[in-house]
Formats: sequence, C-alpha cells, structure tokens
Amino acid sequence: MKLFTFAASLRTGSWNQKLMDHTSALLREQGATVTEVPFADLAQMPIYSGDLQDSEGFPEAAERWKSLLEDHDGFVATIPEYNYSIPGGLKNAIDWVSRYRPQPFRGSRAFLLSASPSMVGGNRGLWASRVPFELLGVHVYPDMFSLARANKAFDEDGSLEDKGLEQRLNGALEGFLGEFK
Amino acid sequence: MKLFTFAASLRTGSWNQKLMDHTSALLREQGATVTEVPFADLAQMPIYSGDLQDSEGFPEAAERWKSLLEDHDGFVATIPEYNYSIPGGLKNAIDWVSRYRPQPFRGSRAFLLSASPSMVGGNRGLWASRVPFELLGVHVYPDMFSLARANKAFDEDGSLEDKGLEQRLNGALEGFLGEFK
Amino acid sequence: MKLFTFAASLRTGSWNQKLMDHTSALLREQGATVTEVPFADLAQMPIYSGDLQDSEGFPEAAERWKSLLEDHDGFVATIPEYNYSIPGGLKNAIDWVSRYRPQPFRGSRAFLLSASPSMVGGNRGLWASRVPFELLGVHVYPDMFSLARANKAFDEDGSLEDKGLEQRLNGALEGFLGEFK
Amino acid sequence: MKLFTFAASLRTGSWNQKLMDHTSALLREQGATVTEVPFADLAQMPIYSGDLQDSEGFPEAAERWKSLLEDHDGFVATIPEYNYSIPGGLKNAIDWVSRYRPQPFRGSRAFLLSASPSMVGGNRGLWASRVPFELLGVHVYPDMFSLARANKAFDEDGSLEDKGLEQRLNGALEGFLGEFK
Repeated sequence: MKLFTFAASLRTGSWNQKLMDHTSALLREQGATVTEVPFADLAQMPIYSGDLQDSEGFPEAAERWKSLLEDHDGFVATIPEYNYSIPGGLKNAIDWVSRYRPQPFRGSRAFLLSASPSMVGGNRGLWASRVPFELLGVHVYPDMFSLARANKAFDEDGSLEDKGLEQRLNGALEGFLGEFK
Repeated sequence: MKLFTFAASLRTGSWNQKLMDHTSALLREQGATVTEVPFADLAQMPIYSGDLQDSEGFPEAAERWKSLLEDHDGFVATIPEYNYSIPGGLKNAIDWVSRYRPQPFRGSRAFLLSASPSMVGGNRGLWASRVPFELLGVHVYPDMFSLARANKAFDEDGSLEDKGLEQRLNGALEGFLGEFK
Repeated sequence: MKLFTFAASLRTGSWNQKLMDHTSALLREQGATVTEVPFADLAQMPIYSGDLQDSEGFPEAAERWKSLLEDHDGFVATIPEYNYSIPGGLKNAIDWVSRYRPQPFRGSRAFLLSASPSMVGGNRGLWASRVPFELLGVHVYPDMFSLARANKAFDEDGSLEDKGLEQRLNGALEGFLGEFK
Repeated sequence: MKLFTFAASLRTGSWNQKLMDHTSALLREQGATVTEVPFADLAQMPIYSGDLQDSEGFPEAAERWKSLLEDHDGFVATIPEYNYSIPGGLKNAIDWVSRYRPQPFRGSRAFLLSASPSMVGGNRGLWASRVPFELLGVHVYPDMFSLARANKAFDEDGSLEDKGLEQRLNGALEGFLGEFK
C-alpha cells in the first residue's frame, strides 16, 4: 500500500520530525511504499477565508494535499500538541482541503503519533485531531502512539532506545497496515 | 468594564460578523466599553513555527492580541464551526499568543457565541474552542450562545427576529458582565 | 458477519430503541447476523468500584458484554446524548468491561447512531462516546448517524419517512459492513 | 464561603480521596467552610432511566446533591480518569441531578482535581468532566490540578512531598476562592 507521511511541525529537527523519520523507515521495512512530505509543503498557505477561496481558488499547499490523498491509500502523521489541541497550522490546512468536492479525505486511512519532551507525550492533541479527520471520513486507527520525554528517547541510529516501546510502535504499525487488504 | 470583540471569520459580511455587530451593540447598551476588532488584525499572520519565532520574533497580529488582552478586562467572540472544531486561523493565533511570557490570556474573561446557517448553530466548534482558552487561564463563561439558521435570524435593524432568543442573548450577556465586579 | 445491537436507553419505547429496531432490520437485509440485546442486560449493574471488583468479581451484565464481544465481530449502538456527553449508565458499563484481561473491546468494530427529538440529533454525545471506545481499541466507523426530530421521523412501518435520510442510513451501514472482509 | 468536597471514587483509601482530604484541609486553612461528602452518598443510585424517574421519582443520592448544591456556594472534586473520560458513576449522578427544575447546578462554582499513579495524572478525565458541568451552568475554574505518580506524592502528614507542587495547589485554590466575592 502507498502512504504519505509528515510531521505537523515547521521547526527544523523537531522531535516529531525525528519520530516520523523513524516511523517512515519502519513502514518501509514492513512493505509499505512511503512518500515523505515536508510540512512546509502542506501548511504554508493563507489563513482560510471564503472570500479568498472565491477570488483566488485553492492555494498550492491545498492542491498538494488533494493530489497526495488521491494518489495514496492513507497517511501517517506525527502531530505536536499545542495548547491541549491540534496545531493551528494543521487545522487551517484541513479547513482548506475540506472544501474540495468530492471531499478528498473521505475513505482515507490514518495512523497518528505524537512526540513531546514532557512526561505526557501529546495525546490530548491527538484526540483533538481525530475529530476533524473522522468527521471528514478518515478511518483513524484506534491505537495511537505518544512518545513522552522525546528528548531522551532516541538511539543514535534514530530508533527508540526503549526496546519495549520500539516493539509496541512496530506492532501498532503492523496492525494499521493490516487494515489495507 | 472594557471588552474587545471580534468575529473569527475573514469572510466579508459573515453571519458571525453580523451576530457580533449586534452583540457589541447590546454590550454597550449594558454599559460596557467595547473595542471592535476586525479579524484580519488578529488572524493574518504566518503559520506558527518555533524557528520563525526565534528568527523574526512575534508577528504584528500577535502583538495586537497582547495589547488588547493587556488593555481590556475580557473579550467576546463569535466563532464559526469548521469541521466540528475551532477554525485553524483562530487556533494558529492562539498558538502564537500562548508563547509570550507572562502569558497574556491568563486571568482574562470571555463569552463565546457562534452563528451558522445550519440547524445546529456551531456549538461543537465552541466546545472545542473552550479547551485552549481555558487551558491558558481564560475564565470562559459557562453559557454560550449558538445561533442556528443564521441566514433567517436577523431583523432589518440587526437584532434577532425571534424576540425570545434576543432576550436569552441579552440575559446571557448580563450574566457575563456580572462576573466583573 | 455477526453483530450485536443495543439502544443505550432504559426507557420503554425510546426513540433510540425505535431507531435501533429499524437499524437491526436493515442490517439483516444486508446479510448480517444480528443479536438484539435489551439495554437492561448491559447496564443494570452497580456503580464501578475497585473494592467491589475485588470482593465480588464482575457483575452479570459485565459478563454479558464480555461474551457478546467474544461471540460477535462488532456491534451497532444507538446512544442518546445526556448533557452533551455519554450516558452515565453506558460509561459505567464500559468502565467495568475495560477491567477484564485480555480487554474484550480490543479489535471489535462499531457503528454509532443517535436519535433525539431536538433539532440537533445527539451527535455531541456520539463524539464523547467515541473516545473510550477508541481508546479501548474499537474501530469506530468514521460516519455516524444522528437522527434529529426523532418524534416526527418514523413511518408507520418503522422506517424513516424522509427517504433521502433512509438511503443515507442504508449507505452508511453498507460502508460499515464493507469493513468486515 | 461554603463548599462541599468529594472524591469521585468508591475505593477505600483511593489516591483521589487522599488528595481530597488534603485539599479540604487547605481550603479550611484559607477560610472556607467545608462539608466533606463520601462518594457513596453521591453515587449509589440506580442507572438513570426516564421510566424509573416517572414511577419512583428521584433517588436519595440525587436529593443529596440537590440539597448540597442549594446549601453551598460551590464544590471541589477530585475525579479519577476512567478510559480517558469521566467515571460512569459520576456521569450517572449528573444525569439524574440535571433533571430537576430549577436545575440545581446552575450558577455553582467548581474546582476540579485528579490524582493518578501514572505519569499523566488524569487530566483527560478532567477535561471530559468539564463539558457536562459547564453545560449545566457551573463556573468551572480554568486551572485544574492533576497529580501524577500519586502513589509517591504524599508526605506522612498528607501534604504533598514536592513543595513546589504544594505551593501551586495552594495558589490555585486561593485563585478559586477569589472568585467568590
């Protein structure tokens, strides 16, 4: 199956990007075809406005989402938690993309992860992110993966130092890939 | 008390703007000093990025939020529902403003409304919006006001045609203003 | 595939029960084997207490959930909205059942509906209900079905008067059944 | 001001009860009059059913809530997190009490805490609990207090070992008490 992956953070070298780099590698090892997409390509667009849509049409980054969704069976995203909720930049992108007809999220499948240097790991942001995706018809895999203390979590080769955690991540991805038949 | 008000939509003549125009008038009738702020002044800023914050500092619109929060006792906002959640543009603004220290939302008070042409009125978006505001220390008034069928709701003078609804809105605003003592 | 169905209301002749009666019939027409379970069998149990679990073990209604989950591929439930959230009785049942090891919800699939005489239809309750189910590993189908104005919605034969709505319900159930392969 | 306090757990010696014992003491030190209520008195009631309400009226525990709400200015509760959401027993109690007219929660004020032996502390349960309370007109204080690793958190005298945390709790309670004027 064909998946696109992204880390919903614009910061260079963010923990979410690091977790996504490793996750993309694991997905490939398990046989998936993976397109890694820089978040700038998906998020750098104006704040949604109906007037702007009427006058200028969709921005380039929304077009990119649309093609990616059409060309892939699903996506895997690491999403940082901002103020116990979804990052505004990701939500703004979803708001734009949700205006296409047919609406391109419908029928896609997603696996969501989060990384945070805190002890919590960002799962409140993940739960807030499920709502718009599921409303738009994405099958969001029930299990999600929250990496706490991300600043101490990675080995030098980019895998997770805690091998129990590494195994859990691999198992969850395997479960997700099992949904594509 | 001094309040600032805004409609979290960039569309000219949006139902949320119409509801806010009327709400600002009602607040003034009840004795509040009201600063009406165009949403463009609060939302037109780049997508949040830690790198950008490091290199360029805060955008102008974030500075505007900060001054408004410092100069007022609270705010009243109409918030459209986008995909059962908070508009991305509003969330992006909150993400920026939440990075100031001291964090300027703390201790403010807010009343939230929503207008929608649908039969539902947008209250799922309001509940999603409470989370970041409350996390950041805003006292969000328990009652909120969702205006359904907004396209048929207004009299020619901008008040609500349904006088029972108009009374409920006025009563809720009175309750909110009672919190400032 | 084998499904069990229930309406999460103890009231005789509730709108949610009426919607579930019709939904069970539609599921059978589409080839599913359906076990209809009265909510009393699933909800009449003590309030969860760790002490009680230690001294008395699991109540009969929790055992019923466990067998049902083990013997079926998934479930379909109509859930009334109580105070913008999940009914306490349903949540209490989930709290008990979540204590079994292995945890019996894991890997099940669910489709959720709601009926309400109001103009809204109960979907805030459905979204609140998704959280514990998904946390426990249930694949909750993205589309849900909220029936507003339920007191005027049914034909004499128990189907929906609005044939467009009837078609949408049938289509959503078909999509859900397509998940079992 | 007069407050009632409870820990929303039926387990003897639960961490939430321990945190509530300490919190009640701190509230008294700060000048509040505190009624401590065992959760059994507030939760031991049948699962809500409209039929039962029609035939038997309200259960004793619902009457207790009503009197407590009428006789006090607000309440302080520790709420364990069950399956990322509100405990079913607490939600069931709220569902019953919300049926009184006038609805007794309206205009009350609440401060919410949570204790958990995990590293997270239960704040997802707190956020899920805010929704029905706020819908019913309770002014839920924006700050909440989540005690992680509760099994290692208490001194022998029942206060918090981590004195920074103890100070934060005291400060939050002081802020809450400042809302009553």
